[in-house]
Order: sequence, then structure tokens, then C-alpha cells
Amino acid sequence: MGYARLMETVGRVNDLLNAQSILNWDARTMMPHGGHETRSKQLATLSVLTRDLLVSDATRSALDAAEAEVASKSDDAVEKQMVAQVREAIDYHSRIPADLTRQRAELGSIGHAIWMKARSESDFASFAPHLEKTVALNREMAEAIGYSEHPYDALMYRFEPGETVASLKPLFNRLREAIIPLVRAIGEKQPPRFDFLERDYPIETQYELGRRLSAAVGYDFERGRLDTTVHPFEVSFTRNDVRITTRYYRNYLPASLFGTLHETGHGLYEQGVDPAYTRTPFATDMVGLYAVGGVSFGAHESQSRLWENHVGRARAFWDNNFDVAKEYFPEQLGDVSVEEFWRAINRVRPGFIRVEADELTYDLHIMLRTDIEAALIDGSLKVKDLPEAWNAKIKEYLGLEVPSDAKGVLQDVHWSSGQIGTFCNYTIGNVMAGQLFETASKDPGIASGLANGDYEPLRHFMVENIHQHGRRYSRDTLLVRTTGRTLDPEPYVAYLTKKYQEIYSL
Amino acid sequence: MGYARLMETVGRVNDLLNAQSILNWDARTMMPHGGHETRSKQLATLSVLTRDLLVSDATRSALDAAEAEVASKSDDAVEKQMVAQVREAIDYHSRIPADLTRQRAELGSIGHAIWMKARSESDFASFAPHLEKTVALNREMAEAIGYSEHPYDALMYRFEPGETVASLKPLFNRLREAIIPLVRAIGEKQPPRFDFLERDYPIETQYELGRRLSAAVGYDFERGRLDTTVHPFEVSFTRNDVRITTRYYRNYLPASLFGTLHETGHGLYEQGVDPAYTRTPFATDMVGLYAVGGVSFGAHESQSRLWENHVGRARAFWDNNFDVAKEYFPEQLGDVSVEEFWRAINRVRPGFIRVEADELTYDLHIMLRTDIEAALIDGSLKVKDLPEAWNAKIKEYLGLEVPSDAKGVLQDVHWSSGQIGTFCNYTIGNVMAGQLFETASKDPGIASGLANGDYEPLRHFMVENIHQHGRRYSRDTLLVRTTGRTLDPEPYVAYLTKKYQEIYSL
Repeated sequence: MGYARLMETVGRVNDLLNAQSILNWDARTMMPHGGHETRSKQLATLSVLTRDLLVSDATRSALDAAEAEVASKSDDAVEKQMVAQVREAIDYHSRIPADLTRQRAELGSIGHAIWMKARSESDFASFAPHLEKTVALNREMAEAIGYSEHPYDALMYRFEPGETVASLKPLFNRLREAIIPLVRAIGEKQPPRFDFLERDYPIETQYELGRRLSAAVGYDFERGRLDTTVHPFEVSFTRNDVRITTRYYRNYLPASLFGTLHETGHGLYEQGVDPAYTRTPFATDMVGLYAVGGVSFGAHESQSRLWENHVGRARAFWDNNFDVAKEYFPEQLGDVSVEEFWRAINRVRPGFIRVEADELTYDLHIMLRTDIEAALIDGSLKVKDLPEAWNAKIKEYLGLEVPSDAKGVLQDVHWSSGQIGTFCNYTIGNVMAGQLFETASKDPGIASGLANGDYEPLRHFMVENIHQHGRRYSRDTLLVRTTGRTLDPEPYVAYLTKKYQEIYSL
Repeated sequence: MGYARLMETVGRVNDLLNAQSILNWDARTMMPHGGHETRSKQLATLSVLTRDLLVSDATRSALDAAEAEVASKSDDAVEKQMVAQVREAIDYHSRIPADLTRQRAELGSIGHAIWMKARSESDFASFAPHLEKTVALNREMAEAIGYSEHPYDALMYRFEPGETVASLKPLFNRLREAIIPLVRAIGEKQPPRFDFLERDYPIETQYELGRRLSAAVGYDFERGRLDTTVHPFEVSFTRNDVRITTRYYRNYLPASLFGTLHETGHGLYEQGVDPAYTRTPFATDMVGLYAVGGVSFGAHESQSRLWENHVGRARAFWDNNFDVAKEYFPEQLGDVSVEEFWRAINRVRPGFIRVEADELTYDLHIMLRTDIEAALIDGSLKVKDLPEAWNAKIKEYLGLEVPSDAKGVLQDVHWSSGQIGTFCNYTIGNVMAGQLFETASKDPGIASGLANGDYEPLRHFMVENIHQHGRRYSRDTLLVRTTGRTLDPEPYVAYLTKKYQEIYSL
């Protein structure tokens, strides 16, 4: 009875989290301007009730009973794993004082306006006091959550369980050692032709092309939608309703094209979760309080980056689909060869802004932020010294002089919301995508599918090895089961090196 | 403290009800096909938690404390009225056994499929057992809720508080006595030209025209949206986010045109509620468990019918707006005079189907259903005798022989959902619209506005007299304050008589 009661409660928690996701999706795609203030209140109420339900005495007593019920089962029994995940989440939330959560939420709610103003005036000094409070509260949060080695480990736990400052160090070193020389070498080469990507691309047609390519790689529109938003995202309300969004620039085709493929990758993950896991712990992030089937932010990003980059920016993809793109844009692409198109969409150009970065330089932006966050949290870097540290890293990694804090340390929205600890997922996603893609490509069926424009074998591989398991296994367990080893940068490094040597004739 | 705690709880109840409304809106406008099953579970969870929160011990103790706090205030003090409405709702829910609510919900959840099949096969006998259970459960519900005279009164209470079978009798008699002879007389006249309303009207252009007319009468798109759906509706998530929907037929212009104006009328009501009432009892139907600012379903319908019919089907409206319509449809309306257009949109043609009925015959469909529901509930009509009773009324009211139960007693979805008691609101809305419009039109500013295409004076009158009050006053209190008397059919009868005498030269 305890197990059944516990699962009934988790089902309700999942329903409430999905309701929040629906309200958030609506707010970011459909809601009229006037709705913001009351929508925040609706979300706050749902959020409080969800947490209260999860950590209630009734849930705890159901959990105790459920643990007794499943105690005799083997450790890899689904029931035992589900119960263990509820225990882990309740322990996590129990360690964090409600007052601390409230303080961080309050700080986050005022931060956006402060940051917007500071960024528009490129005035770091006016943002610094807010950031100092954010760092202090997150440090307090880290102490409450607990950690073995580094307080930043505690903050990453919610997004990338198991990842630590210590485990990131060799990974980042290896990536920097591989990427920085590549970027330098490319800087001495002639840039590819690019003009045609900045022609006039009517937005409705961009939508149609994006939708077609998304469906071509396997996104199921019977259980999904593609909408327009300002900051693209994917969100699911169970595997049965998985929505993606993108943004369109009339004079810049790649944003919607690769944005759609990126979110499609996230969407495929959620659509692929085992239906039996719907409304269970394996489809509910009870630590992060988010209804999601993917197991970590990094694992999720591995799927978006895999479809965006390993599939979507590959020469073979355009050998098979450039004629499709030309159907939609016959004039804009009429004088372009597939070779030119492929080179253009893979152009490398160091810049200041993370969200505009190309595939090769993106990880440098991420590593910079992760290292800086960790240093702020352990106190080795003071907020007042942040712009200097930031600008020095940009110079070291990209050879650029940051012209203003607006284009430097003030560019990201993340810190204004009170949140610290989530940047590393992007790079982990890239590394994991490289590792999964290397293994998958060794399968002759998958390789021949990719060569011939049939993406079903690759998607099937991901469903079998990653998607279907939902949150049952940890990221590294999934990696070991699929590739034989935990996170390993070598396939990704090899992929980047080979690809850019070819494109830029290095 | 009790009052503040109580209002905090009502605010949360309002948030949860609005969340349900958002999930319902999404399900009816945006959700991909695959999402239905899990969406039902999400809604069920929200529904249970909302009711649990409203009737919880904590809420009851806050209510007791709040009553003591406001006891010394005058009866028309806002605080006292708000507290009284919470008490009324909690008493209402306390009288209904949870098991009865569950049984009715379960019956409703299986009814749709049974009804769909029965209707498609025009087989009343296969629907009759379900309807018998529905009637029996609703009778039980009526006994639990309580009533003075007629059990149907208890069922109407949730939708039209204060309305009774006894109060409806003279109202319905007066309407039948006025409408049936008008319909007969019109039947002997030449029908107006109608062909041009069935030309090819591209849907995107219908949308644009509907949006323009909706904005012209004052609907605020900064706090609203217009979307497409199967069964048009309006829904609000506080006054700050009020959404309307319509449906489009490519070869039939009036559906979207007057559907949009109808839902606009509902939307204006919600957009006009006093901002100070947001998230309070005056914007929360705690009996019906629905987040709404309008005070009864009939009062709400008075606003939709007022803008659809009294404004939108008036000659003056088209004297001012026919050129606008011709901008959008120059070819389709090129050979049409405003006189012809106005006559066509007011065509009277008795038919079997309620949702296709014109303004004049609509109330006959409603009265038929209301009388039949009341008779089913008090046992004077047996389910097995229902088709015969239905067909006899259609013959009496409209002079038509019902050809099949699919076009007769099986046409409406309502009974399949387990719900009985809501039909009368449509006719009450018409009557109330007639009464309000008569009073408003006596204002020279309003009259001249309507003559000249300025709808702000009329909208302002409705905001001042009806909308802003939200659920503070009862429907009849609003009527007395605005028109000097309770519900009175004479203005509506006079309006119908004058209008159709003119159109059909009776």
C-alpha cells in the first residue's frame, strides 16, 4: 500500500510540475503582454503546493512504508530505484531551509530589472551588489545541500548530479588544449563565403522548412508543436505532449534552422521515454522540481547538440537535404553549392557573445563561466575583480579585447535570476554527444542511414540506449552501458579536429 | 489575521482555478492530439487539490476567525461580503458527499463516447440507460444541495443562483407567447437574399475582420487573444489575460463574424472587472469552482448577446461597418447593399439544431430543454418518454417534424457529461441583454455613439454598471441598480417584435 500511495503522490507531483511547465510555455509563446503579473502569482502558488505535497508528512510516511515494501527486492528492480529517487529528493529538500529558498527566489525576482538596467548602461558596478548577494546566498545554499570537496559541487548537483569541480578540471584542460590551437589556426585562414545566409528569408517559409527537417529526423508532431519565442526552448508535459520553439531572423537563416534542429534533439529525448514511466519518478526531476524525462541537463544537451551539430551540420546531411532547402528558398540559394552551404554553416568566428558563438568556440565561453562561478563560490575570486578576470580569459581563449561589460560579464541573464551552477551542462552535452555519436556511427546501419538521409536508425539507437530509460539511470551509467566508459572528451576532440581541419584545410 | 489568511487562501484557490482554465484553453486550442490522456490527469489533480484547499480545516478556521473580524462591519462592506461568499461556498461543498461528486465525474467521463455512438447511429435507446443514471445522480445531488420548492432549483443554483422553476414559468410563458406568433408570421413571408453569405471567404481574412471588429467595440488585445477552436468559448485567467476563440467556415461568413462578437462580449465583461478584485472572492466562483469575474452564467450571456445581437446585428452597426467588411471582402460583398446584408444576417429559419438557430428561434430551443430537464428531475417525465416529448415540443414551437433522434434529443453534448441545470442561462442572458440595452440606449451619448460607430459609451456603461463589480452583487441586484427592476422580459420582447416586424414587414 505504501508503494502505491507513494506512486500516486509522485503522479500528482508530476501533474503539478507539468501544469507549471504548461503555464511557462504559454507565458513564453502565447500569453498577451498584460498577463505577466498574475501569471507569476499562479506559478508561485503551484510551486509552493508542489513542494509542500512532495515533502508532506503523508508523503514521508508513504515513503517509509514503500521502502519497507521494496527492501527485499534486488537493487536494479524498478520499484526499488523509484523509491530510492523519492528518498533522495526528499532528503535534498529537507536539507535546504525554506527561508533560504524564499530569500533566493526574492533576490531572483528583483534581479532581472537590475541586470537589464546595468547591461543597457554597461555598468557592472550597479549590478555588483546584487551579484554579491547572489553569491553569498548560493554559498549558503551549497553549505545546506552539502558536498565533499568543493561548494560549487553542491550547486551543480541539481543540474548535473555527480559532476564536480575536480572532475571538470581534466575535462576542461583537454578541451582547451585541443580547441584553442584550432581557433588560432582558423583565424589565419580565409573565411568561407557567407553572404547567402544573410539574404531575405521570409519567416513563414523558414518555419515550413524547419518543420519539415524536424519531422524528417523523427520528431512526432502528433505529440508535439513548433512555435515562435524570444529565447528558444523545449518543454514537455509528459512524452505525449512535447513542444519545441525557435526564433526567426528574416535576414539570417541559420538561427531558426539549427535552433529548430537543436530543440528537436531535446524533443526526441522526451518523446522517446518509455510510456510506462509517465507520471513516475523516472519522468520527474523531484530534486530540481521539473517534469522531465531526461536524466541530467548535460545528457539532455547531448541530444540537442547531436542532432544540431553531428547530424545537422554534417556534410552528408546537406548532400541529402540541400535540394529540400532549395525547394523552399530557390532564389536565396540558387547560386550556392552544397559545399559552400556546408562551409558557411560551419564558419568559425571568435566573438564576445556566448549565444552567438559557433560550435568550435562555444565551449570556451562555457568553460570561462563555469570556472568563474566556481571561483566566486569558493571565494578565490571577488565580485569586484570579476570583469578583469572575465576579460583576461576572453583574451586568452579567443584573442579578443572585451570592449564593454555589456559585451562581457553582463551579457548573460543567468546570474540575475539568483541561480548559479548550470553552465557546465552545455559542454558536458557536447562531449557526451561526441561520445555517443562515435559509438553510434560504428553501426553500419546507422552510418548508411546518415549517408542516405535516413535518420531512423540513429534515432532508434538513441531511443534504445538513452531516451527510453528516462531518469532511471544516471548520465554516466547510460554512457557506460552505451559506450563502455564514463564521460570521455576524446571522441569530441577527434570530431572537432577532423571536421575543422577539413573545412579550413589546416 | 483570519481575514488576511482567508484572502491569501482564496488567492491561491483562484490561482489554481486559473491554472485549470489555462490547461483547458490549451487543450482546446493548442494541444497536439497525443496529449489528451495525460492532460485529463493533470486537470483532475488540480481539481482535487483546489477543492481540498478550499474546504480544508485551515481554511475553515481562517473563515471562522475572519467572520469574527468583520462581524461589526456594515453589510455592504466589501470585506464582509467577501467573507460571506466564502462561507456560502464552503457550506455548499460541505453538503455534497465526495462520493456523489466522484460518481458523477466518473459517469461524465464515460458518457461522451456513449453519446457520440448513440448520436451517430441516431439510437436513443443506447443512450437512455446512461441518461437515466445521470438523472438519478443529479436528483441525488439536488437533494444534497437542498431546495425549497423544486429539486431542479438546486441544480440551477451553481449556474444561475436564485433562479427557480417557479420564477422561470412566467418568464417562459411570456416569451413563448411573443416569439411563436412572430416565427409563424415570418414563415409566411419571402426569405431575404442570402447567397452572398455563403460565398468563398478565406479564413485568414475572416480572422482579420473579426479581430478588427472585436477591437473596434473595445476588446483589449494587450490583455487578450483570438484563437481558433471547434466549439467557441471565452476564458479568462484574471482580467489581465482574457482569451476568446471562434470557428471558421470558408463558405459561411456569419459563424466567425458573430461568433467573434459574441465571445468579445464575454471577454469585455472579464476585462472590465475592477483590478482590486483580482484573486479575490469577487473574481472567483467558489461554488462552481471556476475562476471568473462574471456573476452568473446568465449575466455573462447578457454581455455576449448584447454585443452580438443588439450591437452587431443592428442596422446602425452595418451602416458604420459594412465598408470595413467590404475592404476585407471586396469581391464577395461587391454586389451587396447594406440593407441586404443586414436582412441576411437576421434571417429567421426554424430548424432542428440549437447551435444553428437564429436569434428569434434560439430561446424556443432553450425553453424546451429547460422544461424537459426540470421534468426529468422531478420525475414527471421518464427518460423513455423523452424523444416523444421533445418532438412534440419542436412541432408545437417550430412547426417541424423531427426526422431522427440525432437531430432531436441526441443533438447536445451536455447530458453526456453528467451535467444537468445549465440551459436556462442562455435565455436569461437574452432577456437581461434586452433589459440592459433598453436602459443604456436612453442615454443620448450611448445612442449617438451607436449611431456613429463609437462603442466606447456603451462599453463604459457596461463597465460602470456590470463589469467592474465582478461577483460582488447578484444578477438581480445588478439589474435593480442599473434598470430599476429585477429580470423583466418586456424590453426583450419589444426589441424582438420591433426588429422582426421591420425586417419582415409584418
